[in-house]
Amino acid sequence: MAEPEIPQTCPAGVVVNPGPNFHLEVHDVPVPSPGPNELLLRLNCTGLCMSDVHYMLNDLPLPKQMQDFGVYSPGHEGAGVVVKVGEQVKGWKVGDRAGVKPMWDVCHNCEQCWTGIEQWCGSKLNTGIEVVGTYQQYITSPALYTTRIPDGVPDEVAGPIMCAASTMHRALTDSGLKAGKWVVFPGGGGGVGIQGVQLAKAMGMRPIVIDTGDAKEALAKRCGAVFIDFKKESNVAAKVVETADGIGAHGVMVTAWQTYKDSISYIGSRIGAIITCIGLPPTDADVTVGANPLIYAALKLTITGSIVGDMQDAAAALEYARRGELQSICEVRGLSKFPESVQQLKRGEVAGRIVIDFNKE
Amino acid sequence: MAEPEIPQTCPAGVVVNPGPNFHLEVHDVPVPSPGPNELLLRLNCTGLCMSDVHYMLNDLPLPKQMQDFGVYSPGHEGAGVVVKVGEQVKGWKVGDRAGVKPMWDVCHNCEQCWTGIEQWCGSKLNTGIEVVGTYQQYITSPALYTTRIPDGVPDEVAGPIMCAASTMHRALTDSGLKAGKWVVFPGGGGGVGIQGVQLAKAMGMRPIVIDTGDAKEALAKRCGAVFIDFKKESNVAAKVVETADGIGAHGVMVTAWQTYKDSISYIGSRIGAIITCIGLPPTDADVTVGANPLIYAALKLTITGSIVGDMQDAAAALEYARRGELQSICEVRGLSKFPESVQQLKRGEVAGRIVIDFNKE
Amino acid sequence: MAEPEIPQTCPAGVVVNPGPNFHLEVHDVPVPSPGPNELLLRLNCTGLCMSDVHYMLNDLPLPKQMQDFGVYSPGHEGAGVVVKVGEQVKGWKVGDRAGVKPMWDVCHNCEQCWTGIEQWCGSKLNTGIEVVGTYQQYITSPALYTTRIPDGVPDEVAGPIMCAASTMHRALTDSGLKAGKWVVFPGGGGGVGIQGVQLAKAMGMRPIVIDTGDAKEALAKRCGAVFIDFKKESNVAAKVVETADGIGAHGVMVTAWQTYKDSISYIGSRIGAIITCIGLPPTDADVTVGANPLIYAALKLTITGSIVGDMQDAAAALEYARRGELQSICEVRGLSKFPESVQQLKRGEVAGRIVIDFNKE
Amino acid sequence: MAEPEIPQTCPAGVVVNPGPNFHLEVHDVPVPSPGPNELLLRLNCTGLCMSDVHYMLNDLPLPKQMQDFGVYSPGHEGAGVVVKVGEQVKGWKVGDRAGVKPMWDVCHNCEQCWTGIEQWCGSKLNTGIEVVGTYQQYITSPALYTTRIPDGVPDEVAGPIMCAASTMHRALTDSGLKAGKWVVFPGGGGGVGIQGVQLAKAMGMRPIVIDTGDAKEALAKRCGAVFIDFKKESNVAAKVVETADGIGAHGVMVTAWQTYKDSISYIGSRIGAIITCIGLPPTDADVTVGANPLIYAALKLTITGSIVGDMQDAAAALEYARRGELQSICEVRGLSKFPESVQQLKRGEVAGRIVIDFNKE
Repeated sequence: MAEPEIPQTCPAGVVVNPGPNFHLEVHDVPVPSPGPNELLLRLNCTGLCMSDVHYMLNDLPLPKQMQDFGVYSPGHEGAGVVVKVGEQVKGWKVGDRAGVKPMWDVCHNCEQCWTGIEQWCGSKLNTGIEVVGTYQQYITSPALYTTRIPDGVPDEVAGPIMCAASTMHRALTDSGLKAGKWVVFPGGGGGVGIQGVQLAKAMGMRPIVIDTGDAKEALAKRCGAVFIDFKKESNVAAKVVETADGIGAHGVMVTAWQTYKDSISYIGSRIGAIITCIGLPPTDADVTVGANPLIYAALKLTITGSIVGDMQDAAAALEYARRGELQSICEVRGLSKFPESVQQLKRGEVAGRIVIDFNKE
Repeated sequence: MAEPEIPQTCPAGVVVNPGPNFHLEVHDVPVPSPGPNELLLRLNCTGLCMSDVHYMLNDLPLPKQMQDFGVYSPGHEGAGVVVKVGEQVKGWKVGDRAGVKPMWDVCHNCEQCWTGIEQWCGSKLNTGIEVVGTYQQYITSPALYTTRIPDGVPDEVAGPIMCAASTMHRALTDSGLKAGKWVVFPGGGGGVGIQGVQLAKAMGMRPIVIDTGDAKEALAKRCGAVFIDFKKESNVAAKVVETADGIGAHGVMVTAWQTYKDSISYIGSRIGAIITCIGLPPTDADVTVGANPLIYAALKLTITGSIVGDMQDAAAALEYARRGELQSICEVRGLSKFPESVQQLKRGEVAGRIVIDFNKE
Repeated sequence: MAEPEIPQTCPAGVVVNPGPNFHLEVHDVPVPSPGPNELLLRLNCTGLCMSDVHYMLNDLPLPKQMQDFGVYSPGHEGAGVVVKVGEQVKGWKVGDRAGVKPMWDVCHNCEQCWTGIEQWCGSKLNTGIEVVGTYQQYITSPALYTTRIPDGVPDEVAGPIMCAASTMHRALTDSGLKAGKWVVFPGGGGGVGIQGVQLAKAMGMRPIVIDTGDAKEALAKRCGAVFIDFKKESNVAAKVVETADGIGAHGVMVTAWQTYKDSISYIGSRIGAIITCIGLPPTDADVTVGANPLIYAALKLTITGSIVGDMQDAAAALEYARRGELQSICEVRGLSKFPESVQQLKRGEVAGRIVIDFNKE
Repeated sequence: MAEPEIPQTCPAGVVVNPGPNFHLEVHDVPVPSPGPNELLLRLNCTGLCMSDVHYMLNDLPLPKQMQDFGVYSPGHEGAGVVVKVGEQVKGWKVGDRAGVKPMWDVCHNCEQCWTGIEQWCGSKLNTGIEVVGTYQQYITSPALYTTRIPDGVPDEVAGPIMCAASTMHRALTDSGLKAGKWVVFPGGGGGVGIQGVQLAKAMGMRPIVIDTGDAKEALAKRCGAVFIDFKKESNVAAKVVETADGIGAHGVMVTAWQTYKDSISYIGSRIGAIITCIGLPPTDADVTVGANPLIYAALKLTITGSIVGDMQDAAAALEYARRGELQSICEVRGLSKFPESVQQLKRGEVAGRIVIDFNKE
C-alpha cells in the first residue's frame, strides 16, 4: 500500500470555556506523531456520547489532558484507518481499519490485565480524558490496545460500538444470564440501552424495555423487546413482574443512574436474580440503593457492577454487527454540524446517537 | 437389628408463654408416629441456636406449630438414630444414624429443588417453626430429607453441624472464593462464625476474624485466623485492609446483622470482592446497606445472599468433621439443665454452643 | 373436576419374541393402580424412539420388566393427563397434564440428586426398561418425578420433547457454549439432532448440520443451520472448519456413535473447543476415539459426556416449545398403525419422529 | 540505585552437537542489549528441566534459535535482577527482582491474550527454544511479560516455580476441582508433580501420589499426600479407588505421558471426574487414550488439557511460596557442575530439581 500523505494539521472538536457555558469549536490542530509502540490513525467518524458532556460541563474533574496540554478534545468512540506505524509495532500495517475505545491503554502487567478484566487496571488511560479523544481527526493509539474493525462493518456503525455496544456486551456476559431469561433495560430505548437490547436478543434472552414515547416503543419492539411506557403505566414494577412469568425479571441492566432506586422492584419474587450497575453516575448524584440485606438472603439476589467493554467485548460486539444482529441507530452528520450537535446533546435533544463524519462538510 | 422399644411419651423442651417473658419447661409429650414417607428418630442431642430464641421471644411471627398444635418445641439441629421406618420409605433402616436440619422438608418438585438450591423452595418447612423441632426427643423426619451421619462424627458434634457449619459451608462455596483469598468473618469468634473460619481454612482461604475478647482471640488463632479485636483496634477497616495485602479483603461473610453497615469498608480497593449476607435478621432491624452503586461498577463489587445449608452442605460439613478439619466448639449438658440453658442463651451469656444430651440427667 | 372413569384394561404396545425377529402387537393389558406416592396417567401420545428398538432387538440387555413381569412395553416419551392420585401425593390433582421421561424415578437422596445431576443417580429407574413404558396407555408415574406440561404445548409436541429435546437441552447447557459460537450436529437432520439445532439457535449459537438428503437439508436450513451434505462434500471436516470462521467449530454434539471418530476433526485449530458425547451406543460398537492426548493440551480441548435430560431440562425445553422456538417434527398416527410403525423404525425407514395417538384408531 | 556494571560477555550453558550425543559446555558469550520494550536481566539461577533435554536430544524439532543464531542455550526457568531497562519500558527499574518463564513473550493482542489464556496465543515465543534461554546468565526479557519475584522468595526457589509450580497451579485451577476432592498425581514424587501435590494440599484437596521408592514416599507423605508405590502395589487402580472413598478419584493430573493409558482407571465409578493432560509428550510417543466414549456419558467424565502457567499462575505460585505453602525441592550447584548436571539429567539420575547458581563456581 502506498504511504498515505499525512497533513501537518487536522480538524478537531475543541472545548472552549469548559464549565456550564462551554461550547465546542472545530480548530485546526497539529497532527501528532505516533510513539514507537503506537499507531497514528485517521478517523473517519466519531460518535458523540453523553458522558463526554459531563466532562465538558465540569461535572466531573477536569480532564488531565486539559491541564497537560491546555487544550481538550473529548470523544471515546472512533473508527478509521492506520496511516502510520510506530517502529516497534508488530502486526499492524498502514491501511488496516482501526477503532478507538473508551479505554485508550492499559498496563498489560497487573492482575486485572492478566485475567481479562483490564477495565479495572489501576493504570488505564481513558480516551478523551487523560489523552486526546476521538473529536480530533488524527490521533495516536497504542498498537496493543487498538481494535480491528472487520470487513462488513461500516465506520459509522463501528464507532458507537466501541463504547455503547461493547459495554453492554460485557455487562450481559458478566451477568451470567442465560438464554430464555427475562432482562430489564430501564431507559433501554436510548442509544446505549438499545444496543444492549439487541445483544440480549441475539443471546436468546427476553428483553423488557422501560422507557417512554412512540418512537422508542417502535424501536424497542422492532428489536424484539417487550416495551413498558413509564408515562402510561401506573405501576411499572407490577407490569414487569406480570410480563416476566408473573414472578419477576431474572436480570436488570441499570445504565441510567436515576433508575437505580427502582431496579430491585423489577425482580419481584424471582429467586437468584442479578442486578448489574453499569457505568459511573455523577459523583454528587443521590443514588443510594437502600436495600435491606434481608432481600439478598431471602431471594438469593445478587447486585454487581460493570463499567466498560474491553478488547474482547469490542471484538465480540463488532462480530454481532458483522452478522447483522446489531444495528446502529445513529444519524451521520458532517463536520460543520459538529459544534451545534454537541449543544443539542448538552440540551438533551438527541434521540439515538449522532456520529460525526470527518470527511463530510 | 432388634426393633427398639418405642415409649409412649418422651421429654420435650416446650415453650411456655411465648413472648418477652417466655420460659422453657421439659414436659412429657406423646411420641409421634411416622407417616408412610417418614422416619421416627430418637435424638441423642439437640443444639441450642440463637435464632430459636427470636421465635420464642415473638420477635418473629409465632411459629405455625403453636397455632396448629397449641404447643411449641423449637430446635433445628438434632442428631440421633432411626427407630421406626414409614412403610413407603426406601433406603433407611432402624439403627441408621440420622440428623435433622433447619429445613425439615422441601417439595422436591420445583425449579429450586431440581437445581440444588432447595433452600429457596417455596414450600419448604422449617424445623421447630412449621413443625415440631429438635427440642423434643422423638421426632419424625421425611426420609428423603434426613441427613445420614457418618461413623466417626459423634452426635454432639453432628448436631450443631446441621445448622451452623452447613450454612457456612454453603455461603463459602456459593461465594466462589478460591484458595489463598482473604475472607472476613465479622463476629467470627462465635458459635456460627468459628465453623465458617475452620471451613474457610480447610478450603485454603485466609480468614480474618473481627470480634472481641481473649477467649475468642485464642480460639480464632487456634483455627488459623488473623484476629482483630474491635474493642482494641481504633480503625478496624484500616486494619483489615492492611492485613489483606494492603489492598482489602476478597470476601466478607456477614452473619451478624449489626455488622452489615461496616462490611463494605473491609474490601478496601480490592477489585472483584464479594460480600455474602447470610441469614435473616429481625424484620424490624435497621440494616440498610447504603451503598452508592458507583462502588459496584468502580470495584466490580458483588453483594449476594445465602440462607442455610442443604443436604449437600450438611453432607460436606460432616465429611470435614469426620476428617478432623472441623471441630465443634460446644458444651454438652443434660436434660435437667435445658430450661436454664435456654435462659442463658436468651440473656446472651453463652460462649460457643450448648448441646443438650437427651440421655443425660 | 369429576373423577374420570378408569377402565379395567387398556391398550399397550407389547413386544413379542424379543430379539432379531421381534414384532409388536397391541394387547389389552390391566390398568395398573398407583402406589401411595404415584400418579396414574392416561397417556394421549407416545413417541417412538430408536433406542427402544435396540432393547427390543436384544442388542442391549433384556429389560428387567420382561424378567419381572413376563411382558414388555417399551417407550419413554409420553404425554397425557392425571386420572388418579396416590394418597400421599401433594401438589397434583386429577386433570393435570403430565409427561413421562426416559428417567421414570430417581432416589432424591444421593449426591447426584442433591446437586441437580440426577441423570447419574445410581438408583434411577428407566422408563420402558426397568418399568413399564409409554407404549402402554395407562401407566403410573412417581409424583415427585412427573413433568408438568404447560398450556400451549400440545401432547404430540410434548411427547418427543420428554426425550430428544430435553436431552439436547442438557447437553447444550452443560457444554457451556455461548451465544455466537459454532456448534456442529453430526446427523443433525434427524429427529433428535434437529431439536438440538433449534435449541442451539434459540440460545444464539450458530449450528452446523452434517447429514444428507434434500429433505434434511431443507429442514436444517429452515431451522437456521448451515447444512453440509456428507455425500456431496468430499472433505466434510475442511468444510466445517471453513464455515466456522476458517478456524473450526467451538463445539460438537455427538449423538450418532458412528460419528465419534470424526468429531475431533471438526474443531480444526479452535482453542478451547468442547466435544460432548451424548447417550449410550451399543456396548459392542467399536467407538474408540483414538486421540493423542497432545491435542488436549495443544488446543485446550475438552471431551465430556451427557446422557439424558432431567426435570429442569424437560421444563426448559417445554418452555421453548411454548414460546414457539422449538417445533416438533413429527407424524402422528393412530393405534392401528402402531405395530407397523415400529417395524418401519426397525428397518430405518422413518424420517423424523412418529408419535402414536392412543385416542385415534 | 547505582547503575550496575554490565560486562561485555557472560557465561552460558551452550549445547554442542545437538542430537543423541549432545553435551553441554559453558562458553563466554556476548551479553545482549535489550530492545526498547525489553529488560536486560542478570540471572542468579536457572533450573534444569527435563523438557530441555528433549530439545537437546533432537527428540523435538531443533530450536529456532539454533537455526537463527548458530548457538543454542536452553532453559526456561530463571530468577535474577534487572540490570538495564529499554527506553520504552514503564514500571520497571534497575534492581527489581525478575523471573523468566517458559513463555518468553506473547502477542497481547489476540482472543487468547485478551481472555487470560495466553498459553494458547498463536504468536507466543518459548524461552530456550525460539529465543535464548535461561542457561545464559544475562538475557533479555519483554517488560510486559516478565514476572516480579516478591520479597521472601529466594532465587533458587523462584526459578523452578516459573515452570513446574506455575504449570501445576494452572492445571489445578483450570480443573475446577474443589477443596476436599481426591486428586491423583501419577509420577507425583518427581520435581514437577511434588509442586502440584503441595499446591493441591494448600487448596484443600486430598492428593494421592503414585510413584516408587522410599525417598519419594517420604517426600510425598511429608507434603500431605497418600502414597501408592506402583512397584509394591499389585493393583494400583484398585488401591486408588479404595483410598478415594471406595468410589474413585475426582481428578487426575497427568504429567508423565507414559501414564496416560492408566489414568482413566483411577476415577473408578466417580461421577463427574476430570482428567487433565498436562504438557506435550514426544511427538512420536504412543500415547493414545483408547476410551470408549460410553464412559464420558456414563460417568459424566471430562478430559481436558493444560500446557503451562502464565503471568497469573507464576504470581500465584510465588505467593504460595512466600507464605511457605510451597517448598522447592531442589539441589543448588555452581557453574562448574553445569555440564555434568545436564548429563545426569539426560541419564535420568536426578531426583528432584537441580538449580545452577551463576554466582557460584
